[in-house]
Formats: sequence, C-alpha cells, structure tokens
Amino acid sequence: METQTIQIKNTTILADEVKKGSVLIEDDKIVDITRSNSSNGADEIINGEGKFLIPGLVNTHTHLSMSLMRGLADDLPLDVWLNDHIWPVEAHLEGEHCYAGALLSALEMIKSGTTTCNDMYFFMDDVARAIDKAGMRGLLCHGMIDLFDGEKRKAEYKETLRIIEKCHNTADGRIQVALGPHTPYTCSTELLNWVRKKADEKGLRIHIHVSETEKEVEDSLNDRLKRPFEYLEDIKFLGPDVTAAHSVWLSGAEISLIKDNNVKLSHNPLSNMKLASGISPVSDLLANDVCVSLGTDGAASNNNLDLFQEMKTSSLLQKVRKLDPTVLPAGKVLEMATINGATALGMEKEIGTIEVGKKADMVLVDMKAPHLTPYRNPVSHLVYSAEGADVNTVICNGQILMREREVLVMDEVEVMELAENAAEDLLSRI
Amino acid sequence: METQTIQIKNTTILADEVKKGSVLIEDDKIVDITRSNSSNGADEIINGEGKFLIPGLVNTHTHLSMSLMRGLADDLPLDVWLNDHIWPVEAHLEGEHCYAGALLSALEMIKSGTTTCNDMYFFMDDVARAIDKAGMRGLLCHGMIDLFDGEKRKAEYKETLRIIEKCHNTADGRIQVALGPHTPYTCSTELLNWVRKKADEKGLRIHIHVSETEKEVEDSLNDRLKRPFEYLEDIKFLGPDVTAAHSVWLSGAEISLIKDNNVKLSHNPLSNMKLASGISPVSDLLANDVCVSLGTDGAASNNNLDLFQEMKTSSLLQKVRKLDPTVLPAGKVLEMATINGATALGMEKEIGTIEVGKKADMVLVDMKAPHLTPYRNPVSHLVYSAEGADVNTVICNGQILMREREVLVMDEVEVMELAENAAEDLLSRI
Ligand SMILES: [Zn+2]
Ligand SMILES: [Zn+2]
Repeated sequence: METQTIQIKNTTILADEVKKGSVLIEDDKIVDITRSNSSNGADEIINGEGKFLIPGLVNTHTHLSMSLMRGLADDLPLDVWLNDHIWPVEAHLEGEHCYAGALLSALEMIKSGTTTCNDMYFFMDDVARAIDKAGMRGLLCHGMIDLFDGEKRKAEYKETLRIIEKCHNTADGRIQVALGPHTPYTCSTELLNWVRKKADEKGLRIHIHVSETEKEVEDSLNDRLKRPFEYLEDIKFLGPDVTAAHSVWLSGAEISLIKDNNVKLSHNPLSNMKLASGISPVSDLLANDVCVSLGTDGAASNNNLDLFQEMKTSSLLQKVRKLDPTVLPAGKVLEMATINGATALGMEKEIGTIEVGKKADMVLVDMKAPHLTPYRNPVSHLVYSAEGADVNTVICNGQILMREREVLVMDEVEVMELAENAAEDLLSRI
Repeated sequence: METQTIQIKNTTILADEVKKGSVLIEDDKIVDITRSNSSNGADEIINGEGKFLIPGLVNTHTHLSMSLMRGLADDLPLDVWLNDHIWPVEAHLEGEHCYAGALLSALEMIKSGTTTCNDMYFFMDDVARAIDKAGMRGLLCHGMIDLFDGEKRKAEYKETLRIIEKCHNTADGRIQVALGPHTPYTCSTELLNWVRKKADEKGLRIHIHVSETEKEVEDSLNDRLKRPFEYLEDIKFLGPDVTAAHSVWLSGAEISLIKDNNVKLSHNPLSNMKLASGISPVSDLLANDVCVSLGTDGAASNNNLDLFQEMKTSSLLQKVRKLDPTVLPAGKVLEMATINGATALGMEKEIGTIEVGKKADMVLVDMKAPHLTPYRNPVSHLVYSAEGADVNTVICNGQILMREREVLVMDEVEVMELAENAAEDLLSRI
C-alpha cells in the first residue's frame, strides 16, 4: 500500500512548547513538526488557522456501554441506584446492547476530542467491534466479579481469557486487552492472585476500582483490618502495570504505597461528585509524583463522557479543596488528560504528546468563538473556557475520524437510533 | 403597530409540568400553551421537534465587560490576581472598552441560553447600550467603591444617580437599574446607608457582594466584631430587595438573618472554586427556604458565562459537600437558574417560567445529540448531560435573538473583532 500523508498547517501546536506551524503525518505516525506552513504535497491538507492542535485526549476509566443507562436514575442513594436501577438492567444485557452503547459512546468521545479510552465492562468483544469501527484506540477488559464464589470465578477466568485471545492486539494494534478485576471487595484474593499471575505471564495491564467510597474503606478495615491499598500491597498485587480508578479515600501510608509501587491512578471528579463519593487528594498525589490521569466513569453516573468537563472540574475542585487557587494549574490538567493518560495505559511511548515518531492521535479545537475571545493563552482557554463542542477535527492513528464537526467513520443519526432502540429493548426486559 | 405572533410547535415544554405541545407568543408575551400542534396562522412558526423548551436562563451575578480580561491571569493567589493583573487593567477602562466587552458577553450568553443578567461594573450606560442591542433583559448597577473616602463617595453617588436617570426602565422595560455597593469592606457605612435610603425612596433593588472569602469574614470580625451579614443587619441594610452574591462563609445565625430578611442570594460555584473562595452551604440555605439563584461572576474568574456549567456544578458540588447524592436534584437546580433568578431580580411576575401572561423569554435546547441519547428525562439531560452549545434558539421579550444557532441581533465575527481590538487597546495602556 502507498503511504498516505496529511498536513495540518497554519495552526497553533501544543508540542514541547506552544508554537505556530505545521504537522506532517505519514500513515499512522507524526513525521514532522515545523514552523513552516508551505504546502508539501500531502494527500490531505487541513487548514488549522484559528485552531489549537492538541494530543488526542485519553479517558482512563469508562464503562462505554452504560451510555444506554444515561439519565435512567439520578439523585439517588448509591445502593438504591445500583440495586433498583443499574443492576436489574445489567442482568439483561446482551452483546448487541453493549455494541450499541459502546458505539454511541465512541461517537460522543470523538465529538468531544477523546481518541483513547480504558474500558471495563461485559461482552468486551462487542465493545471492541465498536471501538474498531470508530477508528479509536482502546484498552479493554472484562470486568471480573466472583463475589467469593468458586463457580463464578471459573467463569470469569474463562471469559477473560476468551477476550484476550480474541481481541488483544487487534485493529492494527489500536485495541489492547487488560485484566479487569472489578474491586477488592467484589473479587476474592484467589481471583486477584490469578490476575497478578496472568499479568506477569502475559505482560498485560490491570484495571481495577479502588477506594471509591468511605464505606469501602470502612468495610475493608472491618473485614481485613487493612485499608484497600494496604490489603492489595499485602497480597503483592500492586505494581506499575496497575491502573486504579477513583482512589478517593487514601491515607498518607496508602499514598506512599501508590507512589512506591508506581501504581497509576484514574481520577473521575464528576462521577465522584455526582455519586457523592468524595474528593480525591489529587494535588497531594501529584506533589508525590504519582501519575494521575482523568476518566469520566460511565455515562450513568456523570452523565456524559466529555473530558473538557473533567479537566475544568478537576482543577477547580482541587483549588477549592485546598482553598488555594494556585494548585493544579491549566497546563498540569491538560497533561493529566493527555500524557498522564497515555502513561496510565502503558502507551506513553506511542501517544499522549504531539512528537515526531509518535502515533498521529490529535485534535484541532476551534478557538474562534465568543467564549474563547479574546484569544490569549490557548492552554487556559482550553481548560477553563472551552467545551466539548469546540472540538473541530479528530485524527486517530493517522485516520481522520471527524473533520469540521462531520464524523466520517459512522452515520451519527443511525448510531443514535441504534442506541435508542437498544435502550428501549433493554428496559422492556426488566 | 400590528401584533406579531410566533408559534413554537411540536416541542417538549417545561411549564407547570413537562408536556408536549405548542406555545403561542403575541408581541412580548406568552398567550397560549396547548397540547395541540395545529398551525394557527402565526407570523413565525418554529418547529420544536426533538427540542426542549425552557424559560430563558437568568444569570444573577455578572461583570460583563470583564470578558476582555478572560484568561488574562489564572491559577494565581487572589491578591496577586487583583493587584497585579485585574486592577491595573481596570484603571485604564473607558466606556468603549466596556461596551465591547459587554457586547461580547451578551453574544456568549445568548449562545448558551441566558436571556437576563444582573450586572455590576463601570460605564453602565455603555453596558446598557450593549444589552439593548443584544435584545436581552438586564438589571444593571454601577459598582460603588468609596474606600471610606468622602470625595470618592460623592463621585459614586453622582455616577449612580446618572445611570439611574439615564438607563432605568429603558429599552421597552428590558433594562432596569439597581444600586450597586461593591462590598461591606470597600464601602463605608455612610455609603451603605445612602444606598438603603435611595432604594426605599425610588423602589430600586440592591446588588452587593457579601462573604465571598474566609478572610473577608475574619477582617469583619476584627474590624467590627461582627460577621458581614450581622453588620449589615445592624445598620438595617438587609431586606427582600437585596441580592447578595457569593455568600460562601455563613454562620447559622447569618443564614437566619438572610431568611428572616428575605435576602436573595446569587450562588457562583465556578468562580468560588476557581478563586478557591470556598463552598457555599447552598443545600442548607434551600432547606431554609432561602431564594438561591445562579451566577457566573465575571469571565476573568470562571472563565466563561455558561449557566449550563453552573447548573451541573452547583448540584454536584453540594452532593460531594454533604456526601449525599440526593441533595440538589436536577429539577431544583433548573429552578435556581430560572424562577429563582427571576425572583432574585424582582422579576418573578414577568419572567422565570413559561406561563400564560408572562414575558416571552425562552430557549429551545436541541436534545438530538449523542451525549443526550437515549432521550429520557429531559430535565436530567439538561442539567447533567447538556452543554451551552446545545442551545438552538433563543427568544427574549418576544424577539428571536438566535435561531438554529444563528444569532440574528448582531454580527458574531464583528463583535469578536471589536472585543479583540478593545482588549488589545486596553492592555497597550498599562
Ligand atoms: Zn467505574
Ligand atoms: Zn463579582
């Protein structure tokens, strides 16, 4: 096959510094970043004038198919929300529901500038189909829950191995598979030990929820006389290949454990606020050089997948938590949504920055809008003033997924209809 | 002049309940709300299919012209931000800067569904010009600061009276003027007494900042041995015609004072978070039947004027503050942004709900988008999933300000250029 080239010219580029110029893409890779804007005979030329070119955003904690449950139940206590609304629906899920929900989520992510996600759910081969069709990058895992039951445990091993076998390293490498033990309180020690062993054997990453709520910590102290991260350290589960979502309730000793084991975190501020879980001590974690990235969690507890909202909120929430307006400045937040996200998924050598040799995952944000005027510091405007809808053009792995707000990889109306019908079918089964 | 009529049909209407049907507007008023969708010969017909018709949003605390300082300085301590960045710029402000900034802000507000604002700043006759041109509704006040100096005080009286004389009750009643003492710590008791007297004499409202930061409360306790609201009660300043912005740091006794005097509040969560001021006890205030509305504050400390962000954040911030996901549900938040806003501006008989006999201030929000699919509870989707850019059509006082995202009352590109040039001119003077 012949080499395909794309030149993005006359733009403002977030590279090692913010500079004006052009970026040249050859197939799936960035091959040149230059201050020159002269045409170089590329197959596709994108005029980036008035726009800001940033790395594709990385969402490090999602349950994509849960978009079907968006707005299904709000403003409820966590146990009522789970027991009476989410779990009864999930009991009836089939692969086609998960495909429809994941495709809807992929569409939403593209339209708000996300090119990579870290997804944990069920029927993950169907989710992989959706991510592949969308042209996105995803680290996917089957969410394992054994509830300390031997039969369930065996079934979870089987499904996890099936997904690894079927989906790992597919779609030109855009789709990778991880191991996904749900939480330390829904998984037995035996299951967690199996996960650690498989991760080491196969060189796979681990994706897990840890310390989302105060109750989880209290229960862990009651049941095991240890806090969640202390227990995980105890069974030698922690390591640099682990990405822990939420991590809201942390002791100083646990922060040290996270740091010493080089565990990666996914901070989900909007979900933690909406479910009233608490505020993660993100600025303290960052001060300890912990890699903290950003995630949205599922759309049922957010209620969208817009990382622009997570960026702004994560900064503002830390400022008010510390009563200090200088913590978590805009540039740092943008790192959390890009290179930290890449690092949290073990992809920091491939994505997360606009750099020669890296994969061409990037987003043009339109900066010509009343709420972004006057046009000054683009990083500040991006984090504090912009919204998802300002995303203009999205490229992943060298493929243009959206151009001038037109999604090229799927039919928007069809995907919304598919999801609407899947949601209706799912609810009719309860 | 002949009667002009507009029919909005086939839509979902947030009236006394959420219902499907049509709304008929005659000149500046709502004259019918019906389940029928048959055409009735109106001059203009707007098809509201797939959209949600809500009252125009009310922003109860703005400094519109500060949009020129958007992103000028972020992530700084409050005193550095004010002393080194905001005040040096403000010292050079002239009327044309304020006009340009206010017009840019009006454009931004229209595009995110706001039809009414409560503005405090300088050169308010120029701000009034911008609001008039934009077709919006505004309660405007000159921000009075005497710093306990007699000469300054006299100048502030003069400017306030000039603005009342020139602008109050103009633009077909769309523009009203209020009295605007800046804060209890930048205004002398003498000035505050004068304001109370003029408000009673002329039947004007009062707009003031109170208890934004913990330091303000500490200083008040040191200087006056009283907390800010206690001091204001002491000098008989409080009353149902007072709208106090921020009100973050409140004692239980102060909440009682606010309630007993029927003072209206403007909650500004994003500004309070960004400047690290603190979290207002909004759910406690609402439980005490205090009228709490929503404001954005100036764009320099937000950094936009999008009430969709304020709605979502105010709900989520209270949930996490109380560690209770049931507080401040979506419907209540939407009330804060509409009827509570109207009440806080003394306009509850004219605007704030879609009701026969009220002024035709309303907004169609496009609910056909991936992040709003599947389409269920429209109130939940509006508050938790939507963004400003989902606003499709805006009507104020019976005039269509924006239709299908096209702003009809001004040239967007020209206004952005005007603001860009004004900002450049302003900075060149420092
Ligand atoms: Zn999760
Ligand atoms: Zn203010």
